[in-house]
Amino acid sequence: MVETIQWTADGVVMIDQTKLPREIVYVTCKTYEEVADAIVTMVIRGAPAIGVAAAMGVAIGVLKADPANLDAEFERICTMLARTRPTAVNLFWAIDRMKALYATLRGRQVEEIRAALVREAEEIKVEDIAINRAMGSHGAPLIPDGRTVLTHCNAGALATAGFGTALGVIRAAIDSGKKIDVFADETRPFLQGARLTAWELQQDGIPTTLITDNMAGYFMRQGRIGCVVVGADRIAANGDVANKVGTYSVAVLAKENGVPFYVAAPVSTLDLTLDTGDRIPIEQRNSREVTEVFGVPVAPEGIAVQNPAFDVTPSRYVTAIITERGVARAPYEESLARLAKG
Amino acid sequence: MVETIQWTADGVVMIDQTKLPREIVYVTCKTYEEVADAIVTMVIRGAPAIGVAAAMGVAIGVLKADPANLDAEFERICTMLARTRPTAVNLFWAIDRMKALYATLRGRQVEEIRAALVREAEEIKVEDIAINRAMGSHGAPLIPDGRTVLTHCNAGALATAGFGTALGVIRAAIDSGKKIDVFADETRPFLQGARLTAWELQQDGIPTTLITDNMAGYFMRQGRIGCVVVGADRIAANGDVANKVGTYSVAVLAKENGVPFYVAAPVSTLDLTLDTGDRIPIEQRNSREVTEVFGVPVAPEGIAVQNPAFDVTPSRYVTAIITERGVARAPYEESLARLAKG
Repeated sequence: MVETIQWTADGVVMIDQTKLPREIVYVTCKTYEEVADAIVTMVIRGAPAIGVAAAMGVAIGVLKADPANLDAEFERICTMLARTRPTAVNLFWAIDRMKALYATLRGRQVEEIRAALVREAEEIKVEDIAINRAMGSHGAPLIPDGRTVLTHCNAGALATAGFGTALGVIRAAIDSGKKIDVFADETRPFLQGARLTAWELQQDGIPTTLITDNMAGYFMRQGRIGCVVVGADRIAANGDVANKVGTYSVAVLAKENGVPFYVAAPVSTLDLTLDTGDRIPIEQRNSREVTEVFGVPVAPEGIAVQNPAFDVTPSRYVTAIITERGVARAPYEESLARLAKG
Repeated sequence: MVETIQWTADGVVMIDQTKLPREIVYVTCKTYEEVADAIVTMVIRGAPAIGVAAAMGVAIGVLKADPANLDAEFERICTMLARTRPTAVNLFWAIDRMKALYATLRGRQVEEIRAALVREAEEIKVEDIAINRAMGSHGAPLIPDGRTVLTHCNAGALATAGFGTALGVIRAAIDSGKKIDVFADETRPFLQGARLTAWELQQDGIPTTLITDNMAGYFMRQGRIGCVVVGADRIAANGDVANKVGTYSVAVLAKENGVPFYVAAPVSTLDLTLDTGDRIPIEQRNSREVTEVFGVPVAPEGIAVQNPAFDVTPSRYVTAIITERGVARAPYEESLARLAKG
C-alpha cells in the first residue's frame, strides 16, 4: 500500500489524490503554505488525513519560522492552516493539539520546540494508524458475513495515515475471516469512490464493484447490500454526522430498506461543542468540480451550479458509530459523551 | 428549440444526444438498421422519442424493403427495432401501432402501404407534441408557485418529439405565470441532466441549477425543493414507475422530506399487462459508461462495474401521475385503468 502522507527531510510528502488512479505522483510540501494549499486543492483529503497534514504543516512552519518572532509566526501558521477547509473537525483538533503542546514549550530553546512539534506531528500520524486498527477490531463483528458492504466516498487508507476508518472496518472484517465484497459509490463530483476507494481496494485484492451514486438505492431495494459503512468529517453531540455529500441519501435509503448504516470515525471527529449537526459548517466548493471531469466539460457553459461538499445525516438514521474506543449507539448524547471521556 | 427527430427526404434526422452540449451534430439514418443503432447507442433516447424513432425506423425500413417479400421484411424490421432497448414500453407501443396499421393494409399496392406507414410515423410525432402540451396543462396547476422544481434525467423536448413530459409540465407552469426555477440532477452515468436538461432549459431561459445526483437529498432536507417532477419509461398497472436509475432514490428522499413527487408520462407509457413494477425488465448497459466520461477514464482499469440504466419506484412514493388525459392518484390500479380506457 502507498503512504498517504510522510514526514521526510525534504518536507511533507503526499500522494497527489487529485491525479489518482491515472497517475501516481508524489508532492513534496516544503512550507506550511504549500501544505495549506495541498489541503485546499484536495491533493490530500479525508478528515483524519487532513488532521495529520495540518499537524505536519504546523511543524514544518515552525521549522522554517523566524526564531526571533516565534509566537506570532506560530499563530499565523495555525490560522492559515485552520482556514483551509471548514467541515472536518479533525483539522482543528490536530491544530489545537499542536497549540497545546506549543504552550507547554514556552521559554524552551527553539531547536527543542521544533523537535517536539515534529515529534508530535509524527506521533499523530502513528496514532492514527493504531486508532484505525482499533476501530477495525470494534467494527469487524458488525459486518454481516457473506454479504456486500456499500461505502460512499473514500474513508480508506488514503483518507487517513493508513488502514482507513470505514475501509479499515472492512479490512478488519476480511482479516477476521469474513467473506465480503464492496460496492463503492463513485461519489461525484470529486469521484473519491471511483478514483480512490476502487483503486485502494483493488490494490488489496478486495472484490469491489463500482456504481454511480444514484444506483445505491436500486441495490438496497434488491436486498443486495448487507450493510453500509462510511466515514465522518464531524459528529455532533447528538450523533448527527457530517460526511461527504450523498451520505444523507444513502442513510435514508438504508433505513427505508432495513439495511444497517454504520459510521466509522475516530474520537477526534466528535465535536461535542455542537448540540446538533445543523450547526456544522458545510463547505461550498468550486462549480467546476461539477461542470468538468478531469478538465472535460460535461455541462453547458454558464450554467448555475451548487456544490456543497458535505451533508448532515441525522442520528436517527445511524445504526451505530464505530470509534477506536468502542461502538456507540443511540441515545448518542450519552454514548458519545462516555466515549469522549475515554 | 432544436428538433429532436425529423422525417426528411434524406432519411430520419436526429440531433446526436451523445455529443450535446459540446457539439450540435445531426445524424441522418437512411436505413432501419441505422435507426436501430441510433437507439442502442443513445444518439436518441427518452421513452417517447424512441417510440417516434422506432415508428420512423419501421417506415424507412418498409420504404427500402423488397416489395416481393414485404411481410417477411416487415417482420424482420420490427423485430430488430424491438430488440434495441428493453425498458421503455413506448418503443413496443409504437412498433405495435405500426404493425396494427400494416395489418389493415394487406393486399394494397406497396406504394400505398409505404405512404400510409410514413404518414403514421409522422402522425405519432405530431401527436406526441400535442400529448406533451396536454400533459403540461394538467400538470401545471400541481407545481407550487415561487418554488424550485427538482428533476432527474432528461424528460424534456430532447426526450420526446418536443416540449417534453416532465419539462413540459415545468414549461406549462411557467407559461401559466408561475415563478419557478429548476434544480437538475446531473444523472450519471450518461449525464442527461448535465448535458441535456441543463442545456435545453438554458436555451429556453428557464433558471436552472445543476447539482450532482447525491446532492438532491441535501437540498430536500433544507426545504429548498417545492416538488419533484420526472418522466417515466414504463408504468405498471399498480402505478410502479420504471425510470432512469436514481429516480427511486429521489422518490424515497422526497417522501422522507414531505416533498410531492410527480411523474409525467403519456398513456403510451402505461403497461397494464404488468401487475407490478417488479416485472419490468431493467436494461444493463456497458460498464464504460461508468468508468469513462467522454472517453476519459475515471476509475482504475479492470474494476468491476454494475450499470443498471433504470430502477423501479414503488407507487407508494408517487404523489400523482400526470398524463395527457388527466392526473392519476392512488389507488393507481383504478385511476390508471380509467385513463387507459380513455
